[in-house]
Amino acid sequence: MEFKISKELIKELELLIQNKNDEQLGVLLNDMHHADIAEVLDELDFDEATYIFKVLDSEKTAEILLELEDDLRENILSRLSPKEIAEELDELETNDAADIIGELSKEKKAEVISELQDVEHAKDIVELLRYAEDTAGGIMHKELVKVNENWNVLTCVKEMRIQAENISRVHSIYVVDDEDRLKGRLSLKDLLTTSTRTNISDVYIRKLNSVNVDTEDVEVARIMQKYDLEAIPVVDELGRLVGRITIDDIIDVIKDEADKDYQLAAGISQDVEADDSILELTKARLPWLVLALLGGFVTVKVLGLFEGAMLEHGKLFFFTPLIAAMAGNVGVQSSAIIVQGLANDTLSGSLFNRLIKEVSLSLLNGLILALILFLGSHFLLNVEIIIGVIVTIALVSVIIIASLIGTFVPLLLDKFGIDPALATGPFITTSNDICGILIYFSIAKLILGF
Amino acid sequence: MEFKISKELIKELELLIQNKNDEQLGVLLNDMHHADIAEVLDELDFDEATYIFKVLDSEKTAEILLELEDDLRENILSRLSPKEIAEELDELETNDAADIIGELSKEKKAEVISELQDVEHAKDIVELLRYAEDTAGGIMHKELVKVNENWNVLTCVKEMRIQAENISRVHSIYVVDDEDRLKGRLSLKDLLTTSTRTNISDVYIRKLNSVNVDTEDVEVARIMQKYDLEAIPVVDELGRLVGRITIDDIIDVIKDEADKDYQLAAGISQDVEADDSILELTKARLPWLVLALLGGFVTVKVLGLFEGAMLEHGKLFFFTPLIAAMAGNVGVQSSAIIVQGLANDTLSGSLFNRLIKEVSLSLLNGLILALILFLGSHFLLNVEIIIGVIVTIALVSVIIIASLIGTFVPLLLDKFGIDPALATGPFITTSNDICGILIYFSIAKLILGF
Repeated sequence: MEFKISKELIKELELLIQNKNDEQLGVLLNDMHHADIAEVLDELDFDEATYIFKVLDSEKTAEILLELEDDLRENILSRLSPKEIAEELDELETNDAADIIGELSKEKKAEVISELQDVEHAKDIVELLRYAEDTAGGIMHKELVKVNENWNVLTCVKEMRIQAENISRVHSIYVVDDEDRLKGRLSLKDLLTTSTRTNISDVYIRKLNSVNVDTEDVEVARIMQKYDLEAIPVVDELGRLVGRITIDDIIDVIKDEADKDYQLAAGISQDVEADDSILELTKARLPWLVLALLGGFVTVKVLGLFEGAMLEHGKLFFFTPLIAAMAGNVGVQSSAIIVQGLANDTLSGSLFNRLIKEVSLSLLNGLILALILFLGSHFLLNVEIIIGVIVTIALVSVIIIASLIGTFVPLLLDKFGIDPALATGPFITTSNDICGILIYFSIAKLILGF
Repeated sequence: MEFKISKELIKELELLIQNKNDEQLGVLLNDMHHADIAEVLDELDFDEATYIFKVLDSEKTAEILLELEDDLRENILSRLSPKEIAEELDELETNDAADIIGELSKEKKAEVISELQDVEHAKDIVELLRYAEDTAGGIMHKELVKVNENWNVLTCVKEMRIQAENISRVHSIYVVDDEDRLKGRLSLKDLLTTSTRTNISDVYIRKLNSVNVDTEDVEVARIMQKYDLEAIPVVDELGRLVGRITIDDIIDVIKDEADKDYQLAAGISQDVEADDSILELTKARLPWLVLALLGGFVTVKVLGLFEGAMLEHGKLFFFTPLIAAMAGNVGVQSSAIIVQGLANDTLSGSLFNRLIKEVSLSLLNGLILALILFLGSHFLLNVEIIIGVIVTIALVSVIIIASLIGTFVPLLLDKFGIDPALATGPFITTSNDICGILIYFSIAKLILGF
């Protein structure tokens, strides 16, 4: 049932390209779904992919373009003339077209726009290019069905049929006044069950959620999820209906947001993929590693403070990686839970209650781990009892402190409007390494008095 | 426009509850969206929330129930009789009702089912309870609109109106044969533009994606995203249409999957939230900490092997947390990129190419970091040149090895059908700590010969 890419298919295509057998290529590919063709093209080299791209007609290639991996799309676009790109864009919905134009260089952008055939479409695309990528304006489509509140159902259905021509999914029918201001909505279902002479103003639903063009995309995602909406209208400052966001546009926002939090937790600061260039991957990864390295310098300095212990209690130094690792792990756990709680809006209760809870939790975990550590230090690692005691006390203290840092740093960042996800990953492990080692040796010094 | 929860509103509600002013409570709440009411109830204590719950009518409370935090829902359900719960469920769509029944104890489950008034609804719910939670059957709704291929458009529209009564969103109209086997689909839009005497068999679209009841939910999500579907029909082993999955059901799957990868990377092994109980949080967090602690034991042992260096080259031990931290951070970065690549299906190319790339990348990062470290060790940390050289060589080696481990462990797990996300977080940091320290001191021993 489902399409599975096969080595045989790839081989067959490569042979057909070599023989320039365009007809057979068409036969093979025209029945395939554009998402499947994109998957195939991603497996070919750039020249082969471009060859196939030029064989297929623009209705199909336009959709394929949207599904390709970034680098292949960029490569193919660089080989197309502005006129050819414009032909592709004429086939696409406004915001998909705007997304592709957004990837072009400034000059090419202008050339492509001037080549667009459908003037209305071009105007819509240019409008969309004005909005920031991460706002409702940046993700909305111009395609929607709207009717005037003064019409009756019959006029409405006739108008709708015309408008719906270019729209893949109708969802709601929006009702506007003479100034194009959003007044409410009609559902397709209602329309099916209402007499044709009824006035729209008598049947439309006045209550509806809408967002402003400037609303952040993550906020739009939150509203649509909370109220379980499949589409939401977008209005401008004057309340005029300017676009519509559908649930499939929002899925990408939700995924990107979750991916971003995950990447930050792993110490990757930009949205990169495994197949990006080494330079891009370095740009995303190196800054965090530099931070960790500088943190490492601090741990070296901190350990230097306790050099006096080396002669008599050298074994203490064997435990530094253990203490640092536990501090790091606990901190990452605590911060991840807070970051997800903030992202999903599931944090309730006061800061004080959270403090009590986090301390109880880490005390419980800490005591269990301390027991394992104490027994382990005695029976597995054979260190003196006193070292075992010091390490055990240090572990419990470090776990409590690390979990508090992990809890409060993201909450604090969030309070100041900074992305709390920055506090997970290398930042939290590094600062907890430093704190952990400092606490550990301070306790040792207190007990052993070196 | 959008609802914002306020302290005043909470106070007002608490006062009304104290005075048992049910009428005013109704006035205040009946106009609110159920998702907003759920948000309000989550802020009240259990008794107050239950009081309000009982004041509102079941059409509203049923929807509220779905939106509540887990612990409040559990509490409220425990205070309702099986008959009362059944009344709520009669208002809900089948899979929402099944989800709630799934949370009840075995005996209560049976009692509630026997109290359901709508027999068809009850049958559907019982059917849904049979399927595993993470399969298409477990997330599908029974509510859908289907027509027989032998009908004409007029019969079809009439039938649709009846069926659509209970369905919030129609999306597609599915076409079945006399045996209920899925044959194709009709779009609402097509229906609006076709003459009423046309036979369905002449207009329906025969090509459509469907999934089996046993298909994994993440696979359903992948298909719906790839082909940009807003709904997909679910068939049983005999190809009979048994349900439908809509895009909003899939959003939760996508989010849960991303959240799960994130949590695993942070060393949290179950789906927990900040507001879960301490016991649940401990169950999710402690196993990873124990793993890290046992890994810590190994690092103590490894360092013990090099005890001989302590007298003459004690400073070497100051650098262990730095080396361990760098190894951990690099490993987490590499593994996160692979895990996301696997999750988003964006990994292409051979294993060998990935190896070359990862080595080049870590060599580039490693050399830059090595330069910083060498300069830092000399000017900031004032250690002897030879120690600086050792640490610097160790850093580059450790970064390369750590990134290779981070790359290949998730790929290996994936090959064996194990969730690659398990390889991120504590697992990778712990093993990289051990490897890193071992490499570091081996290099030191080779050069200094202690």
